[in-house]
Amino acid sequence: MFRKLSSYDEALEALERFFPSSPVGVEEVSISDACGRVSAEDVKSPISIPPFDRAIVDGYAVKASDVYYAEEDRPAVLKTLGSVKVGEEPKISVSKGCAVEVMTGAQMPKGADAAVMVEYTERRGEDLLVYRSVTVGENVMKKGSDIEVGETLVKRGTLLSPFEVGMLAAVGLKTVKVYKKPRIAIVSTGPELVSPGEKLPPGKIYDINSYTLESSVKLCGGDVKYLCRVEDDPEAIRNSLLKAIHEADLIVTSGGVSVGPYDLIPKVLDELGKPGVILSGIAIKPGKPTTFALVDDKPVFALPGQPTSALLTFYLFVRPVIMRMAGMKATPLKRVRAVVDRRIFPAKGRRTFVTVTLRRERGRLVASPVPKGLSGAIKTLAKADGFIEILENQQFIDEGEETTVYLMKSLDEMEVQT
Amino acid sequence: MFRKLSSYDEALEALERFFPSSPVGVEEVSISDACGRVSAEDVKSPISIPPFDRAIVDGYAVKASDVYYAEEDRPAVLKTLGSVKVGEEPKISVSKGCAVEVMTGAQMPKGADAAVMVEYTERRGEDLLVYRSVTVGENVMKKGSDIEVGETLVKRGTLLSPFEVGMLAAVGLKTVKVYKKPRIAIVSTGPELVSPGEKLPPGKIYDINSYTLESSVKLCGGDVKYLCRVEDDPEAIRNSLLKAIHEADLIVTSGGVSVGPYDLIPKVLDELGKPGVILSGIAIKPGKPTTFALVDDKPVFALPGQPTSALLTFYLFVRPVIMRMAGMKATPLKRVRAVVDRRIFPAKGRRTFVTVTLRRERGRLVASPVPKGLSGAIKTLAKADGFIEILENQQFIDEGEETTVYLMKSLDEMEVQT
Repeated sequence: MFRKLSSYDEALEALERFFPSSPVGVEEVSISDACGRVSAEDVKSPISIPPFDRAIVDGYAVKASDVYYAEEDRPAVLKTLGSVKVGEEPKISVSKGCAVEVMTGAQMPKGADAAVMVEYTERRGEDLLVYRSVTVGENVMKKGSDIEVGETLVKRGTLLSPFEVGMLAAVGLKTVKVYKKPRIAIVSTGPELVSPGEKLPPGKIYDINSYTLESSVKLCGGDVKYLCRVEDDPEAIRNSLLKAIHEADLIVTSGGVSVGPYDLIPKVLDELGKPGVILSGIAIKPGKPTTFALVDDKPVFALPGQPTSALLTFYLFVRPVIMRMAGMKATPLKRVRAVVDRRIFPAKGRRTFVTVTLRRERGRLVASPVPKGLSGAIKTLAKADGFIEILENQQFIDEGEETTVYLMKSLDEMEVQT
Repeated sequence: MFRKLSSYDEALEALERFFPSSPVGVEEVSISDACGRVSAEDVKSPISIPPFDRAIVDGYAVKASDVYYAEEDRPAVLKTLGSVKVGEEPKISVSKGCAVEVMTGAQMPKGADAAVMVEYTERRGEDLLVYRSVTVGENVMKKGSDIEVGETLVKRGTLLSPFEVGMLAAVGLKTVKVYKKPRIAIVSTGPELVSPGEKLPPGKIYDINSYTLESSVKLCGGDVKYLCRVEDDPEAIRNSLLKAIHEADLIVTSGGVSVGPYDLIPKVLDELGKPGVILSGIAIKPGKPTTFALVDDKPVFALPGQPTSALLTFYLFVRPVIMRMAGMKATPLKRVRAVVDRRIFPAKGRRTFVTVTLRRERGRLVASPVPKGLSGAIKTLAKADGFIEILENQQFIDEGEETTVYLMKSLDEMEVQT
């Protein structure tokens, strides 16, 4: 019944319409652990920065009017009253004709409105000769000139970097509210799968998807809470999915979604809870059997078992939902424009994604599709830099044509423009 | 004695010459934890992938020669002998005139050299009608066609992504040797510093550097093992540095490096062990008092206390060393070309780094320097996108001139080219 093939655009619409787009929750973390997390609050500063007028040179705090006419051959002469060290509360104030020694970072004493650099002064006992004039405010960082009380430092939804962490520290905040990482369950099915590290019996292969999906989930801000591999047995799949739905905010399965007699996931999902399967089968290549479900308000993405298809559909559909649940903007994959080095045909009537490698040739980026026979191969996928997209109604992308390449890896060298 | 100012290039040479460029060690981690780590070995495949000739369609394993002349109106008729399920060892072999049912992913039975898709066949009892020919190897992924035994899958020094993790899983490896993260100690000095979360007494400010440096160390692959703030007291600094050198592979300090009477770090470092201070004072702005030392073969970077200077000198000098100790290529900061929107003057005789914000204007990137009076402000730093570099012998960068901007943040939107 639910086996009607949806178009790629319909699948994206279903994502928008049925799946959660808001963060799963909020928690408070130490600023030491905040880098890489997403702020869940508009952080306003409780104090001014600097918290006081601050000397930004080593020298003397003065009244600017006392040294207005000071010159190299006609120094102003002031009386020194003492000094303010960094971190000290000034006990002295500067009256007319006087100066107080200050160090870089020290609080300016009352009465002073500028600081003269030590290089332009000379001490003679208690007298201070000043050989250069200063203007009001010179060499002083005014209270609040960096950050004012009540100013918004970090907006809700900001991915926190060392710079934001620095601002939080600067205003004395020890913790910050961030969005919780969504808990993700990964369920891999397939009677042919064996865990890495175990002996490989005839006819079997090692489980790849559990590990590629686990790593990819972490990279987009999810927390893998449940990882399970089950046989193609309805009862085992059912139990595993129930546990996954209980323990996680979002569930990703791989395998068991084709139309063969042993591909049970959509059937089981539809029995588990309402609304169940939302769509099953998308007119894309690879990834046609991809299935979306909602069970107890938990999104379930049933991806194909073939490792390339599983990863590609993860990038296309699952990643944006996890990112939104983690409080991030679901930014699209980075993309570059490249010229394809041969004619590429799509699968008829399906949105086609072709993995490519990129190289730079005479200043241009050139995309080369992965050989067709190896398009499902894991090594080939690992060597690919990204994929190109061919529309359903497009006949082909011609040799020499420029097209968009969606990057699955960061292309450090290629992004660098010198 | 060691207060001779070094040029920026001399400082970089000293980094190359004196400081470790090799990883601190190797450890074995589960492939579940390997993403984001750096491979410490050339990983060779212990098996072939696929480990057997594998059907890549649902259909029938046949001898191609038996169906060479099959056509829609003249099917070949074969005898079915049974089936091979996914994950099973085939018990039957295919002899002339026979076919064995196979599912996608199943091991091909002996004797068969191609698979016919189920769509082009028809079962009539034990007979199988085949309506289309196949060539030898068609719809079969040959053993070893993805990965051959002994093939190098991952080279030493590779930053592991989900794709490499997938290859390791595919060949059955449960663990991988990766470079240890270097242990980093961070020591902040300054009598004016108070920890975030505590009450701020008059004259004091909150400690910023401990937190910005901690986050930055983590981002470039280090593991913060020791974090300490000390007063400007020679004995306390000495003890803290001794502990840091004992517990960490690399030490970063901030504050206490200027020439004032309370700036003690270089002096203490020089007494702690040989060779001690390597250089103290670099002709750069900001960051002039930056000091490099080696104590018991442990690199010590004594950075200025001013938060912008501390972070900038961290990026310039410390980050590459930590990256190399973590087994990574010390890639330079990403950079983009941008036009400056006003004339910018350097500090005389010093390599000058000016923080800038970037904006896109009529398709071009435009860099705007941070207002001079706020160049040390933490909020200003947080809003900056990167910095430009002005050479010692350069008079200025003129308004409208194109220059290189080193990025301190990832500029997602700006890197995207559509």
